[in-house]
Amino acid sequence: MPPTYTLFYGTFIQLPRYAPPPGSGQKLALSINHGALWVSSADGRIKGFDWEIGIDSDDELKAWVERKGWTVVAENDSTADGKETVIIVKARKDRNGFFFPGFIDTHIHASQYPNSGIFGSSTLLDWLETYTFPLESSYGDKDSDAAPPKAHAAYNRVISRTLSHGTTCAAYYATIHVPATNLLATLCHKRGQRAFIGRVCMDNPAFCPDYYKDASPEESVAATEATIAHIRTLDPDGSLVAPIITPRFAPTCSPAALTGLGKLAASYDPPLHIQTHISENKNEVALVKEIFPQSASYAHVYDDHGLLTARTILAHAVHLTPEERALIRSRESKISHCPASNSALGSGLCLVRTLLDDGIPVGLGTDISGGYHPSILESVRQACLVSRLVASQSAEQSGREKLSVEEALYLATRGGAQVVDMADQIGGFDEGMFWDAQLIELGEVVGDNNHLDGRSDDAGNVDIFGWESWEEKIAKWVWSGDDRNVKAVWVGGRLVHKRGSEEAI
Amino acid sequence: MPPTYTLFYGTFIQLPRYAPPPGSGQKLALSINHGALWVSSADGRIKGFDWEIGIDSDDELKAWVERKGWTVVAENDSTADGKETVIIVKARKDRNGFFFPGFIDTHIHASQYPNSGIFGSSTLLDWLETYTFPLESSYGDKDSDAAPPKAHAAYNRVISRTLSHGTTCAAYYATIHVPATNLLATLCHKRGQRAFIGRVCMDNPAFCPDYYKDASPEESVAATEATIAHIRTLDPDGSLVAPIITPRFAPTCSPAALTGLGKLAASYDPPLHIQTHISENKNEVALVKEIFPQSASYAHVYDDHGLLTARTILAHAVHLTPEERALIRSRESKISHCPASNSALGSGLCLVRTLLDDGIPVGLGTDISGGYHPSILESVRQACLVSRLVASQSAEQSGREKLSVEEALYLATRGGAQVVDMADQIGGFDEGMFWDAQLIELGEVVGDNNHLDGRSDDAGNVDIFGWESWEEKIAKWVWSGDDRNVKAVWVGGRLVHKRGSEEAI
Repeated sequence: MPPTYTLFYGTFIQLPRYAPPPGSGQKLALSINHGALWVSSADGRIKGFDWEIGIDSDDELKAWVERKGWTVVAENDSTADGKETVIIVKARKDRNGFFFPGFIDTHIHASQYPNSGIFGSSTLLDWLETYTFPLESSYGDKDSDAAPPKAHAAYNRVISRTLSHGTTCAAYYATIHVPATNLLATLCHKRGQRAFIGRVCMDNPAFCPDYYKDASPEESVAATEATIAHIRTLDPDGSLVAPIITPRFAPTCSPAALTGLGKLAASYDPPLHIQTHISENKNEVALVKEIFPQSASYAHVYDDHGLLTARTILAHAVHLTPEERALIRSRESKISHCPASNSALGSGLCLVRTLLDDGIPVGLGTDISGGYHPSILESVRQACLVSRLVASQSAEQSGREKLSVEEALYLATRGGAQVVDMADQIGGFDEGMFWDAQLIELGEVVGDNNHLDGRSDDAGNVDIFGWESWEEKIAKWVWSGDDRNVKAVWVGGRLVHKRGSEEAI
Repeated sequence: MPPTYTLFYGTFIQLPRYAPPPGSGQKLALSINHGALWVSSADGRIKGFDWEIGIDSDDELKAWVERKGWTVVAENDSTADGKETVIIVKARKDRNGFFFPGFIDTHIHASQYPNSGIFGSSTLLDWLETYTFPLESSYGDKDSDAAPPKAHAAYNRVISRTLSHGTTCAAYYATIHVPATNLLATLCHKRGQRAFIGRVCMDNPAFCPDYYKDASPEESVAATEATIAHIRTLDPDGSLVAPIITPRFAPTCSPAALTGLGKLAASYDPPLHIQTHISENKNEVALVKEIFPQSASYAHVYDDHGLLTARTILAHAVHLTPEERALIRSRESKISHCPASNSALGSGLCLVRTLLDDGIPVGLGTDISGGYHPSILESVRQACLVSRLVASQSAEQSGREKLSVEEALYLATRGGAQVVDMADQIGGFDEGMFWDAQLIELGEVVGDNNHLDGRSDDAGNVDIFGWESWEEKIAKWVWSGDDRNVKAVWVGGRLVHKRGSEEAI
């Protein structure tokens, strides 16, 4: 019998639910609290917290637990004797430990993971042809009902890697193959990663390669329905794993497929999520204009086919016009900013501040494997760098506020939650939210014995010298942290990743 | 008694000594060899290599060693009996291991290391005032002959970190303090990192803070001479640790100090190395124009004061004019490209391709702590990203070739060797060069058991699936590798860093 609660104890750092409104002149600040927070084993949600309890003494904690009338048990201890039971997980102060909301990756191609870092000097359209379509096409055989072993290896690995970097929720693109897409859903469900699973739709023979495309618009829709059915069987209410309608992007889809997929999403109550790409690269924008002359803009292509909804995630949005931003805003659609990918493929510098000022919700995406790294923390860094470069490129932009570390972390958590339309469920430590969280340790203060020779229990690259404020520690984490700092990860209260052999967890 | 040789065995990857000339249309390719290479214990230099010997069988190696007439010994085994002895170090094939030249960091402020990642949204000039001068000033007390404990902690740590990331040679800036600068030299010498040690000179009261500056031009020169004397005592011929004349940058130095330092460098035979900053940020360029109205350009300021020599390292060079590039070329001065710093401080996108096409030698610098990370591999990544963004920003630049992974690795090794004027000594595996090298392991091929839970012996983030060519493996290393892949580091044949407890090393 599981304990009634898990009690998390130590320092909790998150971003506030609402960022200060644009133009208010207020700076977004970290919310830093010390104390205890408890999560119900029954539903994995946060039941309460107390930021008054001191975190310096075990006696204080013990007295506090007793006042609650709880019995502390070990994880596999089924002692109950009628009382509510609790297990305790601590963020160790001596290791500069803290709890942080899990990261939300709003745009990641699970199937492309094995190609991470392999893109040469290509840009979007030749990258697709040279590297991406050949890999994706190998995830299935239309004549077989089974996903091939390489899909198992790649999907298990991308889940392992993203969990190890603290990603508790991901909006995944799979491939066109139903069995492999279903496998990805099954693996996420089994391993406990919150996920949106998108079967990729692409039927336009003028752009898609012969060896990798849907035979017709009807196939795009029917195959998508097949994966929805599988995902609904796994997780009927979609609380952990949910389908997401995924027209790859405008050039790969016929108008009939776009319309059919829009109708499919709208046929559910609530409507299904939708994800696609928009305005990543200038040549792509020109191509869309050529293919869809009847639409007023790239954004209008999606709007004209019923795909621009309040549950639509648009990846990239590097070259949007003001009119497109206004349309996206009016439809309440969301944007996934993928700075690592945009820099790696030379797509350009996305004007995130402009998007935010326009009131469009923005999250971060790794965009594996246009992006080269499965870590959202790397995306946080790249978002900051891109924002600083934007400011360096033009007088108009230099007057705009650069994205702060705090704002980039907001995009990675609260922003991501808005983008996947779960702002009241995940992204922070509000009462009633799912406990989707990571335990971060920055390591002990650098002392006299600071050689690194022969160490294998490496705490990572963050060096804390002892004088840093929490804000400065967080900046150091953002700029030099990695998966070694992620000691444990929970999704909906379930421990889904653990690093090393830590007694406390 | 040490063995006569160390024999390195396995795969060796490096860049060719000379990159194809600009405009030749030839692509720079990795030089990949399999076999054995031996290094003399007497002088730490490469005595030979044999790329014909197979690396698949220990028997083949044994027979080969016997043909050489050598006796294989364990490291601390002094068996000699008249024969030449050898210890063997293997790059393990099953772990995708290879030897690679050590990285050369051509621009790093050792003293700023504790501030890594702390820069907020500042740009160069306010960053100096807010973050940098206060930290640097704490490394000494002009009334004391001893370096404070914090200098010990920071300098030991920055040496540990850079070694752990494979940096075998660094051009360091210290602070204005002679005792702490001497300490940095002593630590590098003791720990075996090849280093240029620069005592920072800054005497212009109009720009330097009262609490952190040289009292006069004479003090800039005299204090520099004091550190040169110390370094010459440690290492009379400068084969491992050498002084480098370091006027911080034009705005911080009076004309008299600049002239005095130029003369000081020229008074040695061969002339001493010189390092400074140039044209990092537009406001800085404007400031220099204002302070030095008599000089034709920023580059001319240094030239007018005898500081633009064939042994001068100019950091940044983001906003150089064509005339300045021509002047730098004519003086045979070198440039340290610091992309992570330029993006982090929003300094701008350096046109590295233009510099290379102009025939100016370019290396990479981390520029800690304008740069946020001590790893030159991170600088390699950022150099690639910046080059792709340059291409995205203008039609003129989009026609230029982006920096390939191979070219960025060239800058990190051969290019860096040119920049520190040691192109015939380090940066590759040529016969007669110092064995300044790193053993990289990318890890075993991802198999079925690819969960990462509970692992603490983590091989890092590079995932090899088994189908990759060596070029693709190197791309994966560049884009997702880190210090966990650096299993051992040697400088001049001496093992200076080792990761974990590896039996072979």
